[in-house]
Amino acid sequence: MPSKIYFASDYMEGAHPAILQRLLETNMEKTSGYGMDEYSASAKQKICQACQIPDADIFFLVGDTQTNATVISAMLRPWQGVIAPRTGHISVHEAGAIEAGGHKVLELDQHDGKITSQQVADCINAYAKDENREHMVMPGMVYISHPTEYGTLYSLEELTSLSSVCREVGIPLYMDGARLAYALACPDSDVTLPDIARLCDAFYIGGTKCGALFGEAVVFPKKGTVPHFFTFVKQKGALLAKGRIAGLQFDTLFTDDLYEKIGKNAIAAADRIREALLKKGYTLAFPSPTNQIFPVLEREKEAELSELIEFSFWENIDQDHVIVRIATSWATQEADVDRLLELMTDQL
Amino acid sequence: MPSKIYFASDYMEGAHPAILQRLLETNMEKTSGYGMDEYSASAKQKICQACQIPDADIFFLVGDTQTNATVISAMLRPWQGVIAPRTGHISVHEAGAIEAGGHKVLELDQHDGKITSQQVADCINAYAKDENREHMVMPGMVYISHPTEYGTLYSLEELTSLSSVCREVGIPLYMDGARLAYALACPDSDVTLPDIARLCDAFYIGGTKCGALFGEAVVFPKKGTVPHFFTFVKQKGALLAKGRIAGLQFDTLFTDDLYEKIGKNAIAAADRIREALLKKGYTLAFPSPTNQIFPVLEREKEAELSELIEFSFWENIDQDHVIVRIATSWATQEADVDRLLELMTDQL
Amino acid sequence: MPSKIYFASDYMEGAHPAILQRLLETNMEKTSGYGMDEYSASAKQKICQACQIPDADIFFLVGDTQTNATVISAMLRPWQGVIAPRTGHISVHEAGAIEAGGHKVLELDQHDGKITSQQVADCINAYAKDENREHMVMPGMVYISHPTEYGTLYSLEELTSLSSVCREVGIPLYMDGARLAYALACPDSDVTLPDIARLCDAFYIGGTKCGALFGEAVVFPKKGTVPHFFTFVKQKGALLAKGRIAGLQFDTLFTDDLYEKIGKNAIAAADRIREALLKKGYTLAFPSPTNQIFPVLEREKEAELSELIEFSFWENIDQDHVIVRIATSWATQEADVDRLLELMTDQL
Amino acid sequence: MPSKIYFASDYMEGAHPAILQRLLETNMEKTSGYGMDEYSASAKQKICQACQIPDADIFFLVGDTQTNATVISAMLRPWQGVIAPRTGHISVHEAGAIEAGGHKVLELDQHDGKITSQQVADCINAYAKDENREHMVMPGMVYISHPTEYGTLYSLEELTSLSSVCREVGIPLYMDGARLAYALACPDSDVTLPDIARLCDAFYIGGTKCGALFGEAVVFPKKGTVPHFFTFVKQKGALLAKGRIAGLQFDTLFTDDLYEKIGKNAIAAADRIREALLKKGYTLAFPSPTNQIFPVLEREKEAELSELIEFSFWENIDQDHVIVRIATSWATQEADVDRLLELMTDQL
Repeated sequence: MPSKIYFASDYMEGAHPAILQRLLETNMEKTSGYGMDEYSASAKQKICQACQIPDADIFFLVGDTQTNATVISAMLRPWQGVIAPRTGHISVHEAGAIEAGGHKVLELDQHDGKITSQQVADCINAYAKDENREHMVMPGMVYISHPTEYGTLYSLEELTSLSSVCREVGIPLYMDGARLAYALACPDSDVTLPDIARLCDAFYIGGTKCGALFGEAVVFPKKGTVPHFFTFVKQKGALLAKGRIAGLQFDTLFTDDLYEKIGKNAIAAADRIREALLKKGYTLAFPSPTNQIFPVLEREKEAELSELIEFSFWENIDQDHVIVRIATSWATQEADVDRLLELMTDQL
Repeated sequence: MPSKIYFASDYMEGAHPAILQRLLETNMEKTSGYGMDEYSASAKQKICQACQIPDADIFFLVGDTQTNATVISAMLRPWQGVIAPRTGHISVHEAGAIEAGGHKVLELDQHDGKITSQQVADCINAYAKDENREHMVMPGMVYISHPTEYGTLYSLEELTSLSSVCREVGIPLYMDGARLAYALACPDSDVTLPDIARLCDAFYIGGTKCGALFGEAVVFPKKGTVPHFFTFVKQKGALLAKGRIAGLQFDTLFTDDLYEKIGKNAIAAADRIREALLKKGYTLAFPSPTNQIFPVLEREKEAELSELIEFSFWENIDQDHVIVRIATSWATQEADVDRLLELMTDQL
Repeated sequence: MPSKIYFASDYMEGAHPAILQRLLETNMEKTSGYGMDEYSASAKQKICQACQIPDADIFFLVGDTQTNATVISAMLRPWQGVIAPRTGHISVHEAGAIEAGGHKVLELDQHDGKITSQQVADCINAYAKDENREHMVMPGMVYISHPTEYGTLYSLEELTSLSSVCREVGIPLYMDGARLAYALACPDSDVTLPDIARLCDAFYIGGTKCGALFGEAVVFPKKGTVPHFFTFVKQKGALLAKGRIAGLQFDTLFTDDLYEKIGKNAIAAADRIREALLKKGYTLAFPSPTNQIFPVLEREKEAELSELIEFSFWENIDQDHVIVRIATSWATQEADVDRLLELMTDQL
Repeated sequence: MPSKIYFASDYMEGAHPAILQRLLETNMEKTSGYGMDEYSASAKQKICQACQIPDADIFFLVGDTQTNATVISAMLRPWQGVIAPRTGHISVHEAGAIEAGGHKVLELDQHDGKITSQQVADCINAYAKDENREHMVMPGMVYISHPTEYGTLYSLEELTSLSSVCREVGIPLYMDGARLAYALACPDSDVTLPDIARLCDAFYIGGTKCGALFGEAVVFPKKGTVPHFFTFVKQKGALLAKGRIAGLQFDTLFTDDLYEKIGKNAIAAADRIREALLKKGYTLAFPSPTNQIFPVLEREKEAELSELIEFSFWENIDQDHVIVRIATSWATQEADVDRLLELMTDQL
């Protein structure tokens, strides 16, 4: 019997071999803790260069929920909430971490996982004009993810417009870049890392889902955006004692443009899968151009296929249909894609 | 020029004269603090009788947001959230107090300010069946208000059904009774105080909007529902040093059925207003049978009338129309209603 | 059998008759809610005058724990804690309200309930010089009470010195004035209300223990100290719907210097008790010149007396001795003091 | 010029080579996320065996502050606090993480970094007998670290006694085992891993400081101690997407008793250092038998040595003296110890 193939997520493997190699090479060196080491310093410098910002504040945290909760809590005052799409990771799949930090997620309807600058402006205006606003949560920040939870991307125009609205009213725009490598590698995208650094007030460059063992690089393009952020990271339990392990990984990812390249394999594989599925008549639930594909399956078919393919359950549509998620990654093997397509397109 | 008339809310006056009378009579007595006095004890006993429950836990808190935040935080565990209608007071007008306490409000679409047992069951089932549920906020409680923020009421059948769903899955049903007197006084309602005590796991009997200077009586029909609730109330800043002031007010409200009677004047006045407005062709935005009336006004008319009548802005409908709220109370004067109707029905 | 006499606390009665009188007079007037009424406005103006500050931010809250938790949380950032004496109300008797709001109470050893400017300077310096300070809670505020929990008072020199230290390092000095009337009425005290307003960055003027039914007036002498404080008060559940009830009480207390006078009776009574007890050979545990007296009693005697006198248990000293608290108030009757002294000085 | 030597902490290197080896070997395997992989399962089984408990709940978290904050918040109810030594990691060096989670640290005086069962019993009794206890934080848990922050150890008798006191009153005993390997490897200690599992209600086995890249294994010896702990870990931002990376590390540490052996080198090196320093006349501030050594240095000497040796500043003693910390680890090289002793004992 052929073994199962795995497309459930982009965090099923270990790390890019170059990362493990450097962990090995440096393993017995002694460095200062808490990110005060030279590898972390080097990684920060390289990220600044890649972002074309001279002097950002950069911190290496461990995982996505932790990073979102830490950045958002640090940037909001107690009476403020964060605007987010109703399908945003912070709205749905972080077990209430933002609320546990004391803040309401002000959920807006999404379109393909995204919100528009018009929606944000309307939300802020509605608050500003509401006679009861002093009894309400004040919008204090905008959260977007790029790629979104549906694998979609903001265009440069959309991002620019969101940024303008935020800057007009003076609230920060924050981008969750858990899968940013897959956005940067996407030929359809016109948004670059320097664009993000220019348009967002805070963002993170995802490591965990983009080739690291773990780790997310928080970037505040403007130095001093959050005073005492180091202490706040510590308080949130997000400070690594052996900070260099995160630093070294990002140093590797930002050497020779590895981060910009690491997603290309995932996109190529995803494009191949999309094309084949569409040709075979599958419906894709969201127009994702990145490494996540969301085919609609009949329940029976889903049950059958899931014996052979591990993918993620995504959403119930109706009695008979569900959406599943197929995720490719930097590590996806061509042979596994062959097998996936064989299973999905021959058996229907 | 005739003076302005006031219909903005049901908390514009002081207290029912019987309450002030007793404050005067007992003013120089010395009693223990923190609700350990005989007036509080007497009030609790009378509330138990009115609710037909032998031995409830009853606490007197000060205001509505405080009461909701305290009860909800005390009954939820950190990984749980509270199901509520999207228009619920806790969802909109409590400045994020529930989230500040660490919990997500799981907002459901409302119909006339209400949610159905089917919606609650669906929400709980969706959670139970979601393969990612351990990454999500667990529904841990249901919040309803009665009357709702739109002045509407749950029928006994609806309330029974909500209670059944909650008890089946073992999560508490909590009723915000900020305006409960106006529900109990409403001839259209078939829900009694004993019904509420039987069907809810926690609720509060509103004093502030129903004739007291301030005060809300939290009732846990089952003794020991929340251990150490007294200390939690203290921690939340909700414990009155002179607890007797709240106790005495509720003792008065529950003497000779005053609480059951106190809303009748408000309902009669509201009915008269509703009838006249409908006759004159006004649209009422919500089918409220209680002391709140929500006429739709043209913006121009609203501006004109608001010179003479103080009502509450409620919602923008479109460019040209708004909803306002007219609230009557136990203290509403017939002459003021005459004047209101004269202004609203003659000038259109 | 003679009835018991009550000296347990200064919140055993209702309110000063002048307050009840005005509640009666204004009861049926209609005003805006949430402190937007003319009585609150008038009270704020009178407090500004009494404090000799032109334009403070003033808010009326309900009780002491609530006020402390709200002000402290609003003034600290998440990585900061509040310096306080180990016996401070927030350190001991607020059920962890400050920590529930996310902040550590940085407790300093006290002397007669007080801390010195030297201690505060040392604490801040120790933090500043600690190489691990970024892993520690940053001192962000100083809390004192005046009178303290032991009934003692800061001298003008002490208060000036505390203020200087705080302003040098740029952290606010906050005074808990739950019993401020008894400090102001104390002939031994050289600290006036204008001094407090000049030297503190936030303080509250206690109502509950000083003649009101309830209520504390928070004063930020510098306008705009805490942006959106109104919303934060709402979120903390500390906003009164019928805000005028608090406003009216403070308006009364600050009419004709009532607040400055209201404590005089308490001090006179306390002085008489102190003198008699000392003469009789009692040890007083703390050198309180205000309305609280802390005699040391043998346990047996304490048990015996407490059948006849209600006082507060304060502290265990050893196997055989305890400290109790006797509190006088604006409402203490001379006959009760006679009886107290008869019981305490004849029976020993 | 000879290069600097490093004794500042036990987290200056990467990981034990066996761990890196297994990361390499398994790197390209695909597994489920969030700890649902076979390596995590295997690690849990091996830990159960090492602890001689059949069926514990075990979770792999990332770092110490995170682990303490997560476990303590999960086990306390909102009105409870955690008893800890005044020098406990949670009391001093976690940036207020416990308070940020809403709970007071009830600090007791320490002796060599430890607290006694008598102190705990006294604290709980004092609370139970305090007439104001309902206005106070309820002791809800006891925190100890083993080794302590001063490198000292609890004896089996002391631990047994602490456990008895806790079980008598029904509150959990929690052990912070950040450096547990160095306790287990210490010949002077009579406390085994099965003892800890038998006597504590929760504890964690430290990885970060004991040979892992990162990671702490939380053990609840009694299954079901904290319901929904997985979700709470997620909410706290402590859940690793690639959970297997932590699982694999603990699987390695608990294969062939590596965890029991890994500390031996550190203890041998520390013993050699201690002996030499004492012989030379140094004062050691705390009687640590584990991998941390706390010599008292004259400030001038400290400045001089710190050019050549990296150690940790620990505490100021007086104008002229400081305490520093020398930490050895599983990775300490004999040559570095030679050099350290040469520098410290020849130059004095």
